[in-house]
Amino acid sequence: MIIDDSWDKKNGSTILIEGELLEEVHSKYQHIEVYNTKRFGKLLKLDGVIQLTEFDEANYHEMIAHVPLRTHNTPDNVLVIGGGDGGAVREILKYKHVKLIDLVEIDQEVITICKKHFPNISCGLNDSKVSILNEDGAEFIKNVSHFYDIIIIDSTDPFSVGESLFKEGFYKNLKRALKPNGIVISQSESMFYNKDLINDMFEFKRKYFNAVRYYYTLVPTYPSGTIGFHFCSDGHYLPIDINDDPFDRMEGLKYYNEMIHNSSFLTPNGVSN
Amino acid sequence: MIIDDSWDKKNGSTILIEGELLEEVHSKYQHIEVYNTKRFGKLLKLDGVIQLTEFDEANYHEMIAHVPLRTHNTPDNVLVIGGGDGGAVREILKYKHVKLIDLVEIDQEVITICKKHFPNISCGLNDSKVSILNEDGAEFIKNVSHFYDIIIIDSTDPFSVGESLFKEGFYKNLKRALKPNGIVISQSESMFYNKDLINDMFEFKRKYFNAVRYYYTLVPTYPSGTIGFHFCSDGHYLPIDINDDPFDRMEGLKYYNEMIHNSSFLTPNGVSN
Repeated sequence: MIIDDSWDKKNGSTILIEGELLEEVHSKYQHIEVYNTKRFGKLLKLDGVIQLTEFDEANYHEMIAHVPLRTHNTPDNVLVIGGGDGGAVREILKYKHVKLIDLVEIDQEVITICKKHFPNISCGLNDSKVSILNEDGAEFIKNVSHFYDIIIIDSTDPFSVGESLFKEGFYKNLKRALKPNGIVISQSESMFYNKDLINDMFEFKRKYFNAVRYYYTLVPTYPSGTIGFHFCSDGHYLPIDINDDPFDRMEGLKYYNEMIHNSSFLTPNGVSN
Repeated sequence: MIIDDSWDKKNGSTILIEGELLEEVHSKYQHIEVYNTKRFGKLLKLDGVIQLTEFDEANYHEMIAHVPLRTHNTPDNVLVIGGGDGGAVREILKYKHVKLIDLVEIDQEVITICKKHFPNISCGLNDSKVSILNEDGAEFIKNVSHFYDIIIIDSTDPFSVGESLFKEGFYKNLKRALKPNGIVISQSESMFYNKDLINDMFEFKRKYFNAVRYYYTLVPTYPSGTIGFHFCSDGHYLPIDINDDPFDRMEGLKYYNEMIHNSSFLTPNGVSN
């Protein structure tokens, strides 16, 4: 059979991938599907949209995690909102000096499915440093003050369960949840297909954060082949100030390196940054 | 109707784009189709593979042309092999000090179709500096010695009419066709989907050129969203040595800038360069 990324929402283009359905669940929040593809290993879809494949998930997870972790000097407490597949947590755990990781994933079924089908991605979710909370991230954050050094918003697109994570009110609360000098990283869509959304988010993020910068990674199985992130801080940490590799030369990274860290903030003409 | 990029050759993934067929021609060499799409303007396919859309053709044509043109100090004579759409020629013509441009496009029908449907891309093909030759580029180059400063191989994929342009023998002839210090740029496929091909080409190009470097651009409507090029020279010119903009600040570029020029040579881990 053929797996198509959600056509309607993408308004005019989609990606077809050849593969077989392994399991699907209609959870309280969304339609979860796992496929075994001919070319890209296993594939996860949420509400019809491709979230990850084994082939290129590292391109996404390394860039959402290593950019803030290599920028912040003392990242004791890290929060991930969304990210129930565990990929971001797996990367954060490579930084041994991180003391705790809280994962707030609204949908327990995503975690269960990913533990079953994606052991190489979800492998860190049982680590003793990791606490998993099945709550709405937008609600959770309302009760947090000055606790996290880094907050990573590893969300779905803004037209399903993840919608509240793209709103201004959420960022106001994120700001309070951070310690001074903290960093927020958010999944912020494609610079080619979602320019208006990115520009709108840039505007309201700038109200709460002195430094807001867009950077991108390359994910071949996503529509347009690229997806981006916003780096937000009070200006104390800027993404161009990369710390020395705390482990001399971190082994086994499939995508991230220091040159890519820097160059990922350099966008083509026509993409404001 | 729905336009799909050629499924079989891509082995497991393809792109669907919504649009209507405007014209198709079976030329002596290939199947040429032009569509009007819902989202990306007009679209050109050759032998079932998406070649360009109005939405993102600049991402490709600016990067295949401006990288060598901003690197070479005295690019008098420029050759384009393939490139019948005229996009590369349009960009080269922005460098007023270029004295002549030869375009060797095997298929006259491509030029005719593009002049009709893509006037904003083919607009330079009637310029007085431009000579168009409808010949096989691999044959043409056999009779040229030390004439061109820059040669751009703007080819289709290596499994159709463009196949000979991916062979070692062709590069031996290219080397002789270049003036001393000349630069060759070739379309060299996706760093995510064609690693073996890129590595093989790197090996034989290194026999004839001291400097061989891979760089990439982002083309959302191509499979994987990215396509790359090889920069080949005798080492006199290296891509990191960007000349001053000869026109102070070239206006109207949609993708290329000096930061992108440099960062496009920085590849993720797992991509040899």
